[in-house]
Amino acid sequence: MVRIDVALVPQEIEARNLNGITAIVIDVLRASTTIACAISNGCDEVIPTTSVEEAVEISRAYARGDYLLCGERKGEKIEGFDLGNSPLEYTADRVAGKKIIITTTNGTGAIRAAKGADDVIVGSFWNISAACDRAVALGRDILIVCAGEGRRFALEDAVCAGMMCERIASMVAVDESDGCVAARRLYASFRDGLEAAVASSEHARYLARIGFGDDVAAAVQADRVGVVPVLREGHIVRRAE
Amino acid sequence: MVRIDVALVPQEIEARNLNGITAIVIDVLRASTTIACAISNGCDEVIPTTSVEEAVEISRAYARGDYLLCGERKGEKIEGFDLGNSPLEYTADRVAGKKIIITTTNGTGAIRAAKGADDVIVGSFWNISAACDRAVALGRDILIVCAGEGRRFALEDAVCAGMMCERIASMVAVDESDGCVAARRLYASFRDGLEAAVASSEHARYLARIGFGDDVAAAVQADRVGVVPVLREGHIVRRAE
Repeated sequence: MVRIDVALVPQEIEARNLNGITAIVIDVLRASTTIACAISNGCDEVIPTTSVEEAVEISRAYARGDYLLCGERKGEKIEGFDLGNSPLEYTADRVAGKKIIITTTNGTGAIRAAKGADDVIVGSFWNISAACDRAVALGRDILIVCAGEGRRFALEDAVCAGMMCERIASMVAVDESDGCVAARRLYASFRDGLEAAVASSEHARYLARIGFGDDVAAAVQADRVGVVPVLREGHIVRRAE
Repeated sequence: MVRIDVALVPQEIEARNLNGITAIVIDVLRASTTIACAISNGCDEVIPTTSVEEAVEISRAYARGDYLLCGERKGEKIEGFDLGNSPLEYTADRVAGKKIIITTTNGTGAIRAAKGADDVIVGSFWNISAACDRAVALGRDILIVCAGEGRRFALEDAVCAGMMCERIASMVAVDESDGCVAARRLYASFRDGLEAAVASSEHARYLARIGFGDDVAAAVQADRVGVVPVLREGHIVRRAE
Protein backbone atom coordinates (compact mmCIF):
# COMPACT_ATOMS: atom_id res chain seq x y z
CA MET A 1 0.00 0.00 0.00
CA VAL A 2 1.45 3.33 -1.11
CA ARG A 3 0.44 6.47 0.74
CA ILE A 4 -0.30 9.32 -1.70
CA ASP A 5 -0.45 12.80 -0.31
CA VAL A 6 -0.92 16.11 -2.11
CA ALA A 7 0.23 19.45 -0.72
CA LEU A 8 -2.13 21.92 -2.40
CA VAL A 9 0.16 24.82 -1.50
CA PRO A 10 3.89 24.49 -0.84
CA GLN A 11 3.64 25.78 2.74
CA GLU A 12 1.93 22.49 3.65
CA ILE A 13 5.27 20.70 3.52
CA GLU A 14 7.15 23.10 5.76
CA ALA A 15 6.41 21.28 8.99
CA ARG A 16 6.73 17.84 7.43
CA ASN A 17 9.37 15.21 7.72
CA LEU A 18 10.15 14.17 4.14
CA ASN A 19 12.28 11.17 5.09
CA GLY A 20 11.33 8.10 3.14
CA ILE A 21 9.21 10.08 0.68
CA THR A 22 9.31 10.50 -3.09
CA ALA A 23 8.25 14.06 -3.90
CA ILE A 24 6.85 15.19 -7.25
CA VAL A 25 6.89 18.97 -7.55
CA ILE A 26 4.43 20.57 -9.99
CA ASP A 27 4.41 24.09 -11.36
CA VAL A 28 2.40 23.69 -14.56
CA LEU A 29 2.54 27.43 -15.35
CA ARG A 30 5.37 27.28 -15.98
CA ALA A 31 8.55 26.21 -14.23
CA SER A 32 8.09 22.46 -14.19
CA THR A 33 6.91 22.47 -17.81
CA THR A 34 9.91 24.58 -18.78
CA ILE A 35 12.28 22.26 -16.92
CA ALA A 36 10.78 19.18 -18.65
CA CYS A 37 11.30 20.91 -21.99
CA ALA A 38 14.87 22.02 -21.26
CA ILE A 39 15.90 18.59 -20.00
CA SER A 40 14.20 16.89 -22.95
CA ASN A 41 16.03 19.21 -25.35
CA GLY A 42 19.39 18.17 -24.02
CA CYS A 43 20.46 20.81 -21.53
CA ASP A 44 23.27 19.64 -19.29
CA GLU A 45 21.43 20.39 -16.04
CA VAL A 46 19.04 22.89 -14.46
CA ILE A 47 20.13 24.75 -11.35
CA PRO A 48 17.06 26.06 -9.46
CA THR A 49 17.70 29.21 -7.45
CA THR A 50 15.45 31.32 -5.27
CA SER A 51 16.63 34.83 -6.16
CA VAL A 52 18.03 36.82 -9.06
CA GLU A 53 21.11 37.55 -6.99
CA GLU A 54 21.72 33.87 -6.27
CA ALA A 55 21.31 32.98 -9.96
CA VAL A 56 23.86 35.61 -10.99
CA GLU A 57 26.25 34.57 -8.23
CA ILE A 58 26.13 30.91 -9.29
CA SER A 59 26.71 31.81 -12.93
CA ARG A 60 30.11 33.32 -12.02
CA ALA A 61 31.51 29.82 -11.48
CA TYR A 62 31.01 28.94 -15.15
CA ALA A 63 32.40 30.08 -18.49
CA ARG A 64 29.95 32.37 -20.34
CA GLY A 65 29.38 29.90 -23.16
CA ASP A 66 28.46 27.10 -20.75
CA TYR A 67 25.33 28.46 -19.11
CA LEU A 68 22.12 30.40 -19.69
CA LEU A 69 20.69 32.72 -17.04
CA CYS A 70 16.95 32.18 -17.02
CA GLY A 71 13.81 33.04 -15.16
CA GLU A 72 10.94 35.42 -14.59
CA ARG A 73 9.41 37.90 -12.24
CA LYS A 74 5.73 38.71 -12.69
CA GLY A 75 5.82 36.33 -15.65
CA GLU A 76 8.30 38.43 -17.66
CA LYS A 77 11.92 37.58 -18.47
CA ILE A 78 14.29 39.09 -15.93
CA GLU A 79 16.15 42.04 -17.45
CA GLY A 80 19.56 41.05 -18.78
CA PHE A 81 18.81 37.32 -18.53
CA ASP A 82 19.11 34.98 -21.53
CA LEU A 83 15.72 33.31 -21.34
CA GLY A 84 12.45 33.82 -19.48
CA ASN A 85 10.17 31.06 -18.22
CA SER A 86 8.42 30.18 -21.45
CA PRO A 87 8.85 26.46 -22.21
CA LEU A 88 8.69 27.21 -25.93
CA GLU A 89 11.93 29.24 -25.72
CA TYR A 90 13.91 26.25 -24.46
CA THR A 91 14.65 24.78 -27.89
CA ALA A 92 17.47 22.30 -28.50
CA ASP A 93 19.29 25.03 -30.43
CA ARG A 94 19.35 27.24 -27.36
CA VAL A 95 19.80 24.80 -24.50
CA ALA A 96 21.64 21.66 -25.67
CA GLY A 97 24.75 21.10 -23.59
CA LYS A 98 24.17 24.20 -21.42
CA LYS A 99 23.62 24.67 -17.72
CA ILE A 100 20.27 26.37 -17.13
CA ILE A 101 20.52 28.61 -14.06
CA ILE A 102 16.93 29.57 -13.31
CA THR A 103 14.88 31.51 -10.81
CA THR A 104 11.08 31.66 -10.93
CA THR A 105 8.45 33.04 -8.57
CA ASN A 106 7.02 29.74 -7.38
CA GLY A 107 8.43 26.60 -8.97
CA THR A 108 12.11 26.80 -8.20
CA GLY A 109 11.42 27.64 -4.56
CA ALA A 110 9.01 24.70 -4.23
CA ILE A 111 11.58 22.33 -5.73
CA ARG A 112 14.17 23.50 -3.24
CA ALA A 113 11.68 23.25 -0.36
CA ALA A 114 11.18 19.56 -1.22
CA LYS A 115 14.88 18.71 -1.12
CA GLY A 116 14.57 16.77 2.14
CA ALA A 117 12.66 14.03 0.30
CA ASP A 118 14.57 10.88 -0.66
CA ASP A 119 13.87 11.62 -4.32
CA VAL A 120 12.52 14.78 -5.91
CA ILE A 121 10.95 14.54 -9.37
CA VAL A 122 9.91 17.60 -11.36
CA GLY A 123 6.48 16.83 -12.81
CA SER A 124 3.99 18.44 -15.17
CA PHE A 125 1.43 17.45 -17.77
CA TRP A 126 4.30 17.24 -20.26
CA ASN A 127 5.96 14.31 -18.50
CA ILE A 128 3.06 13.02 -16.44
CA SER A 129 3.34 9.33 -17.35
CA ALA A 130 7.11 9.25 -17.01
CA ALA A 131 6.99 11.03 -13.65
CA CYS A 132 4.27 8.75 -12.25
CA ASP A 133 5.94 5.58 -13.53
CA ARG A 134 9.20 6.58 -11.89
CA ALA A 135 7.56 7.51 -8.58
CA VAL A 136 5.77 4.16 -8.45
CA ALA A 137 8.95 2.29 -9.39
CA LEU A 138 10.76 3.86 -6.44
CA GLY A 139 8.29 2.07 -4.15
CA ARG A 140 8.09 4.69 -1.44
CA ASP A 141 5.21 6.84 -0.23
CA ILE A 142 4.52 9.72 -2.62
CA LEU A 143 3.98 13.40 -1.88
CA ILE A 144 2.88 15.61 -4.74
CA VAL A 145 3.71 19.26 -4.08
CA CYS A 146 1.77 21.96 -5.92
CA ALA A 147 3.92 25.07 -6.26
CA GLY A 148 0.87 27.33 -6.39
CA GLU A 149 1.02 31.00 -7.25
CA GLY A 150 2.39 33.53 -4.79
CA ARG A 151 1.96 31.04 -1.94
CA ARG A 152 -1.71 30.67 -2.84
CA PHE A 153 -3.58 27.71 -4.33
CA ALA A 154 -3.33 27.42 -8.14
CA LEU A 155 -6.00 25.44 -9.97
CA GLU A 156 -3.75 24.16 -12.76
CA ASP A 157 -1.28 22.53 -10.36
CA ALA A 158 -4.05 20.82 -8.39
CA VAL A 159 -5.70 19.47 -11.56
CA CYS A 160 -2.36 18.05 -12.69
CA ALA A 161 -1.81 16.56 -9.21
CA GLY A 162 -5.24 14.92 -9.42
CA MET A 163 -4.41 13.40 -12.79
CA MET A 164 -1.19 12.04 -11.31
CA CYS A 165 -3.03 10.58 -8.31
CA GLU A 166 -5.47 8.83 -10.61
CA ARG A 167 -2.65 7.34 -12.68
CA ILE A 168 -0.73 6.19 -9.64
CA ALA A 169 -3.89 4.68 -8.13
CA SER A 170 -4.40 2.74 -11.35
CA MET A 171 -0.96 1.16 -10.91
CA VAL A 172 -0.74 0.36 -7.19
CA ALA A 173 -2.97 0.08 -4.14
CA VAL A 174 -3.03 3.47 -2.45
CA ASP A 175 -3.91 5.10 0.85
CA GLU A 176 -5.09 8.61 -0.02
CA SER A 177 -4.75 11.77 2.04
CA ASP A 178 -7.51 14.38 2.07
CA GLY A 179 -5.44 16.44 -0.38
CA CYS A 180 -5.23 13.48 -2.75
CA VAL A 181 -8.99 12.87 -2.57
CA ALA A 182 -9.67 16.54 -3.32
CA ALA A 183 -7.20 16.71 -6.21
CA ARG A 184 -8.68 13.59 -7.81
CA ARG A 185 -12.23 14.92 -7.49
CA LEU A 186 -11.12 18.20 -9.02
CA TYR A 187 -9.37 16.47 -11.92
CA ALA A 188 -12.38 14.20 -12.49
CA SER A 189 -14.67 17.22 -12.67
CA PHE A 190 -12.51 18.75 -15.42
CA ARG A 191 -11.47 15.56 -17.20
CA ASP A 192 -13.35 16.33 -20.40
CA GLY A 193 -12.19 19.91 -20.61
CA LEU A 194 -8.67 20.04 -19.25
CA GLU A 195 -7.43 22.71 -21.61
CA ALA A 196 -10.33 25.02 -20.79
CA ALA A 197 -9.89 24.32 -17.07
CA VAL A 198 -6.22 25.26 -17.09
CA ALA A 199 -6.93 28.30 -19.29
CA SER A 200 -9.59 29.45 -16.79
CA SER A 201 -7.17 29.56 -13.87
CA GLU A 202 -6.16 32.92 -12.49
CA HIS A 203 -2.50 32.61 -13.43
CA ALA A 204 -3.34 31.38 -16.95
CA ARG A 205 -5.52 34.42 -17.48
CA TYR A 206 -2.73 36.67 -16.24
CA LEU A 207 -0.20 35.00 -18.56
CA ALA A 208 -2.58 35.36 -21.52
CA ARG A 209 -2.96 39.07 -20.74
CA ILE A 210 0.81 39.63 -20.85
CA GLY A 211 1.21 37.69 -24.09
CA PHE A 212 1.93 34.11 -23.00
CA GLY A 213 -1.34 32.46 -24.03
CA ASP A 214 0.59 29.98 -26.18
CA ASP A 215 2.45 28.75 -23.12
CA VAL A 216 -0.85 28.03 -21.38
CA ALA A 217 -2.17 26.02 -24.32
CA ALA A 218 1.11 24.13 -24.56
CA ALA A 219 1.45 23.39 -20.84
CA VAL A 220 -1.67 21.23 -20.68
CA GLN A 221 -0.39 18.71 -23.27
CA ALA A 222 0.06 15.37 -21.54
CA ASP A 223 3.08 13.21 -22.31
CA ARG A 224 4.70 15.57 -24.76
CA VAL A 225 8.07 14.35 -23.45
CA GLY A 226 9.21 11.21 -21.68
CA VAL A 227 11.92 12.61 -19.43
CA VAL A 228 12.12 12.45 -15.65
CA PRO A 229 13.95 15.49 -14.28
CA VAL A 230 15.27 14.67 -10.82
CA LEU A 231 17.03 16.71 -8.15
CA ARG A 232 20.56 15.56 -7.33
CA GLU A 233 22.49 17.63 -4.78
CA GLY A 234 20.64 20.79 -5.70
CA HIS A 235 20.86 20.33 -9.47
CA ILE A 236 18.10 18.99 -11.70
CA VAL A 237 19.32 16.36 -14.14
CA ARG A 238 17.80 13.89 -16.53
CA ARG A 239 17.40 10.56 -14.84
CA ALA A 240 19.39 7.91 -16.67
CA GLU A 241 16.89 5.73 -18.54
CA MET B 1 -19.54 41.91 -8.28
CA VAL B 2 -18.30 40.25 -5.10
CA ARG B 3 -14.92 38.58 -5.12
CA ILE B 4 -15.04 35.19 -3.35
CA ASP B 5 -11.78 33.63 -2.36
CA VAL B 6 -11.10 30.44 -0.40
CA ALA B 7 -7.91 29.79 1.56
CA LEU B 8 -7.70 25.99 1.58
CA VAL B 9 -5.15 26.07 4.41
CA PRO B 10 -4.81 28.95 6.88
CA GLN B 11 -1.21 29.72 5.86
CA GLU B 12 -2.58 31.09 2.60
CA ILE B 13 -3.76 34.23 4.37
CA GLU B 14 -0.48 35.02 6.10
CA ALA B 15 0.88 37.21 3.33
CA ARG B 16 -2.48 38.77 2.56
CA ASN B 17 -3.88 42.19 3.24
CA LEU B 18 -7.30 41.59 4.78
CA ASN B 19 -8.41 45.20 4.60
CA GLY B 20 -11.88 45.56 3.16
CA ILE B 21 -12.57 41.83 3.47
CA THR B 22 -15.24 39.83 5.27
CA ALA B 23 -13.65 36.59 6.47
CA ILE B 24 -15.58 33.41 7.27
CA VAL B 25 -13.44 30.97 9.25
CA ILE B 26 -14.38 27.28 9.08
CA ASP B 27 -13.24 24.44 11.32
CA VAL B 28 -16.00 21.89 10.84
CA LEU B 29 -14.27 19.30 13.06
CA ARG B 30 -14.83 20.85 15.45
CA ALA B 31 -14.10 24.36 16.72
CA SER B 32 -16.43 26.39 14.54
CA THR B 33 -19.24 23.90 15.07
CA THR B 34 -18.63 24.01 18.82
CA ILE B 35 -18.62 27.82 18.80
CA ALA B 36 -21.91 27.93 16.85
CA CYS B 37 -23.41 25.58 19.42
CA ALA B 38 -22.09 27.50 22.44
CA ILE B 39 -23.25 30.85 21.08
CA SER B 40 -26.63 29.40 20.14
CA ASN B 41 -27.03 27.97 23.63
CA GLY B 42 -26.57 31.37 25.23
CA CYS B 43 -22.97 31.60 26.34
CA ASP B 44 -21.93 35.16 27.05
CA GLU B 45 -18.95 35.12 24.67
CA VAL B 46 -16.20 32.84 23.38
CA ILE B 47 -12.59 33.89 23.86
CA PRO B 48 -10.35 32.08 21.34
CA THR B 49 -6.80 31.50 22.54
CA THR B 50 -3.82 29.85 20.92
CA SER B 51 -2.29 28.01 23.88
CA VAL B 52 -3.26 26.27 27.10
CA GLU B 53 -1.15 28.77 29.02
CA GLU B 54 -2.90 31.73 27.44
CA ALA B 55 -6.32 30.26 28.18
CA VAL B 56 -5.45 29.74 31.83
CA GLU B 57 -3.92 33.21 32.09
CA ILE B 58 -7.03 34.87 30.65
CA SER B 59 -9.30 32.93 33.01
CA ARG B 60 -7.58 34.58 36.01
CA ALA B 61 -9.35 37.86 35.19
CA TYR B 62 -12.76 36.31 35.86
CA ALA B 63 -14.62 34.87 38.84
CA ARG B 64 -14.68 31.05 38.79
CA GLY B 65 -18.41 30.86 38.27
CA ASP B 66 -18.32 33.15 35.25
CA TYR B 67 -16.23 31.14 32.81
CA LEU B 68 -15.51 27.68 31.48
CA LEU B 69 -12.02 26.63 30.42
CA CYS B 70 -12.39 24.63 27.24
CA GLY B 71 -10.45 23.01 24.46
CA GLU B 72 -8.57 20.04 23.13
CA ARG B 73 -5.20 18.71 22.18
CA LYS B 74 -5.09 15.67 19.89
CA GLY B 75 -8.90 15.76 20.03
CA GLU B 76 -9.10 15.05 23.77
CA LYS B 77 -10.21 17.46 26.49
CA ILE B 78 -7.26 19.23 28.06
CA GLU B 79 -6.58 17.87 31.52
CA GLY B 80 -8.17 19.97 34.24
CA PHE B 81 -10.33 21.92 31.77
CA ASP B 82 -14.11 22.08 32.08
CA LEU B 83 -15.08 21.08 28.56
CA GLY B 84 -13.36 19.60 25.52
CA ASN B 85 -14.15 20.48 21.92
CA SER B 86 -17.24 18.35 21.42
CA PRO B 87 -20.16 20.54 20.27
CA LEU B 88 -22.59 18.19 22.01
CA GLU B 89 -21.09 19.08 25.41
CA TYR B 90 -21.96 22.75 25.02
CA THR B 91 -25.55 22.48 26.25
CA ALA B 92 -27.51 25.48 27.50
CA ASP B 93 -27.29 23.99 31.01
CA ARG B 94 -23.51 24.17 30.90
CA VAL B 95 -22.80 27.32 28.93
CA ALA B 96 -25.66 29.84 29.32
CA GLY B 97 -24.32 33.15 30.64
CA LYS B 98 -20.71 31.92 30.79
CA LYS B 99 -17.55 33.07 29.10
CA ILE B 100 -16.07 30.21 27.08
CA ILE B 101 -12.27 30.47 27.11
CA ILE B 102 -11.15 27.98 24.49
CA THR B 103 -8.00 26.71 22.80
CA THR B 104 -8.06 24.18 19.98
CA THR B 105 -5.39 22.83 17.64
CA ASN B 106 -6.57 24.53 14.47
CA GLY B 107 -9.75 26.57 14.69
CA THR B 108 -8.97 29.12 17.36
CA GLY B 109 -5.62 29.93 15.74
CA ALA B 110 -7.23 30.39 12.33
CA ILE B 111 -9.85 32.72 13.80
CA ARG B 112 -7.15 34.83 15.36
CA ALA B 113 -5.10 34.80 12.15
CA ALA B 114 -8.08 36.34 10.33
CA LYS B 115 -8.48 39.20 12.76
CA GLY B 116 -7.16 41.78 10.26
CA ALA B 117 -10.34 41.38 8.21
CA ASP B 118 -13.03 44.07 8.57
CA ASP B 119 -15.43 41.41 9.84
CA VAL B 120 -14.70 37.85 10.96
CA ILE B 121 -17.58 35.35 11.01
CA VAL B 122 -17.24 31.86 12.47
CA GLY B 123 -18.88 29.49 10.01
CA SER B 124 -19.76 25.80 9.80
CA PHE B 125 -22.44 23.55 8.37
CA TRP B 126 -24.46 24.29 11.51
CA ASN B 127 -24.91 27.97 10.68
CA ILE B 128 -24.15 27.93 6.97
CA SER B 129 -27.17 29.93 5.78
CA ALA B 130 -26.91 32.51 8.53
CA ALA B 131 -23.16 32.96 7.95
CA CYS B 132 -23.55 33.33 4.17
CA ASP B 133 -26.51 35.70 4.46
CA ARG B 134 -24.56 37.91 6.83
CA ALA B 135 -21.42 37.92 4.67
CA VAL B 136 -23.45 38.91 1.60
CA ALA B 137 -25.30 41.61 3.56
CA LEU B 138 -21.98 43.18 4.53
CA GLY B 139 -21.37 43.85 0.84
CA ARG B 140 -17.62 43.40 0.86
CA ASP B 141 -15.37 40.86 -0.84
CA ILE B 142 -15.42 37.53 0.97
CA LEU B 143 -12.56 35.29 2.02
CA ILE B 144 -13.42 31.86 3.38
CA VAL B 145 -10.60 30.47 5.51
CA CYS B 146 -10.36 26.71 6.04
CA ALA B 147 -8.65 25.99 9.36
CA GLY B 148 -7.39 22.62 8.12
CA GLU B 149 -5.74 20.06 10.36
CA GLY B 150 -2.23 20.56 11.66
CA ARG B 151 -1.58 23.18 8.98
CA ARG B 152 -2.56 20.67 6.29
CA PHE B 153 -5.59 20.59 4.02
CA ALA B 154 -8.74 19.10 5.60
CA LEU B 155 -11.45 17.76 3.30
CA GLU B 156 -14.39 18.60 5.55
CA ASP B 157 -13.53 22.31 5.73
CA ALA B 158 -13.09 22.57 1.96
CA VAL B 159 -16.42 20.84 1.30
CA CYS B 160 -18.16 23.25 3.67
CA ALA B 161 -16.36 26.18 1.98
CA GLY B 162 -17.60 24.94 -1.39
CA MET B 163 -21.18 24.76 -0.14
CA MET B 164 -20.83 28.34 1.14
CA CYS B 165 -19.44 29.51 -2.21
CA GLU B 166 -22.35 27.95 -4.02
CA ARG B 167 -24.86 29.64 -1.72
CA ILE B 168 -23.20 33.01 -2.01
CA ALA B 169 -23.00 32.69 -5.80
CA SER B 170 -26.74 32.01 -5.85
CA MET B 171 -27.34 35.33 -4.08
CA VAL B 172 -24.93 37.75 -5.79
CA ALA B 173 -22.76 37.99 -8.90
CA VAL B 174 -19.32 36.68 -7.99
CA ASP B 175 -15.75 36.73 -9.22
CA GLU B 176 -14.25 33.42 -8.08
CA SER B 177 -10.65 32.69 -7.13
CA ASP B 178 -9.02 29.38 -8.04
CA GLY B 179 -9.61 28.24 -4.45
CA CYS B 180 -13.31 29.04 -4.76
CA VAL B 181 -13.60 27.15 -8.06
CA ALA B 182 -11.90 24.12 -6.52
CA ALA B 183 -14.01 24.17 -3.34
CA ARG B 184 -17.23 24.38 -5.37
CA ARG B 185 -16.20 21.49 -7.61
CA LEU B 186 -15.32 19.45 -4.55
CA TYR B 187 -18.64 20.19 -2.87
CA ALA B 188 -20.55 19.44 -6.07
CA SER B 189 -18.83 16.05 -6.33
CA PHE B 190 -19.97 15.16 -2.81
CA ARG B 191 -23.35 16.89 -2.82
CA ASP B 192 -25.40 13.71 -2.64
CA GLY B 193 -23.31 12.15 0.09
CA LEU B 194 -22.10 14.93 2.35
CA GLU B 195 -22.25 12.93 5.55
CA ALA B 196 -20.21 10.09 4.06
CA ALA B 197 -17.74 12.58 2.58
CA VAL B 198 -17.11 14.29 5.90
CA ALA B 199 -16.92 10.94 7.69
CA SER B 200 -14.31 9.76 5.16
CA SER B 201 -11.93 12.63 5.93
CA GLU B 202 -8.73 11.87 7.78
CA HIS B 203 -9.61 13.89 10.86
CA ALA B 204 -13.13 12.43 11.03
CA ARG B 205 -11.67 8.93 11.01
CA TYR B 206 -9.26 9.92 13.77
CA LEU B 207 -12.08 11.40 15.87
CA ALA B 208 -14.18 8.26 15.37
CA ARG B 209 -11.26 6.12 16.54
CA ILE B 210 -10.94 8.08 19.79
CA GLY B 211 -14.69 7.98 20.46
CA PHE B 212 -16.07 11.13 18.88
CA GLY B 213 -17.94 9.61 15.95
CA ASP B 214 -21.16 11.30 17.13
CA ASP B 215 -19.51 14.70 16.74
CA VAL B 216 -18.66 13.91 13.14
CA ALA B 217 -22.21 12.89 12.32
CA ALA B 218 -23.55 15.99 14.07
CA ALA B 219 -21.11 18.44 12.48
CA VAL B 220 -22.38 17.89 8.94
CA GLN B 221 -25.95 18.98 9.75
CA ALA B 222 -26.70 22.14 7.80
CA ASP B 223 -28.60 25.00 9.45
CA ARG B 224 -29.01 23.37 12.81
CA VAL B 225 -28.71 26.87 14.32
CA GLY B 226 -29.28 30.36 13.00
CA VAL B 227 -26.62 32.29 14.89
CA VAL B 228 -23.77 34.33 13.44
CA PRO B 229 -20.77 34.29 15.79
CA VAL B 230 -18.57 37.29 15.01
CA LEU B 231 -15.18 38.41 16.30
CA ARG B 232 -15.21 41.74 18.17
CA GLU B 233 -11.89 42.89 19.63
CA GLY B 234 -10.66 39.36 20.09
CA HIS B 235 -13.87 37.97 21.55
CA ILE B 236 -16.50 35.98 19.65
CA VAL B 237 -20.04 37.18 20.32
CA ARG B 238 -23.47 36.59 18.89
CA ARG B 239 -24.27 39.21 16.32
CA ALA B 240 -27.33 41.18 17.34
CA GLU B 241 -30.16 40.00 15.07
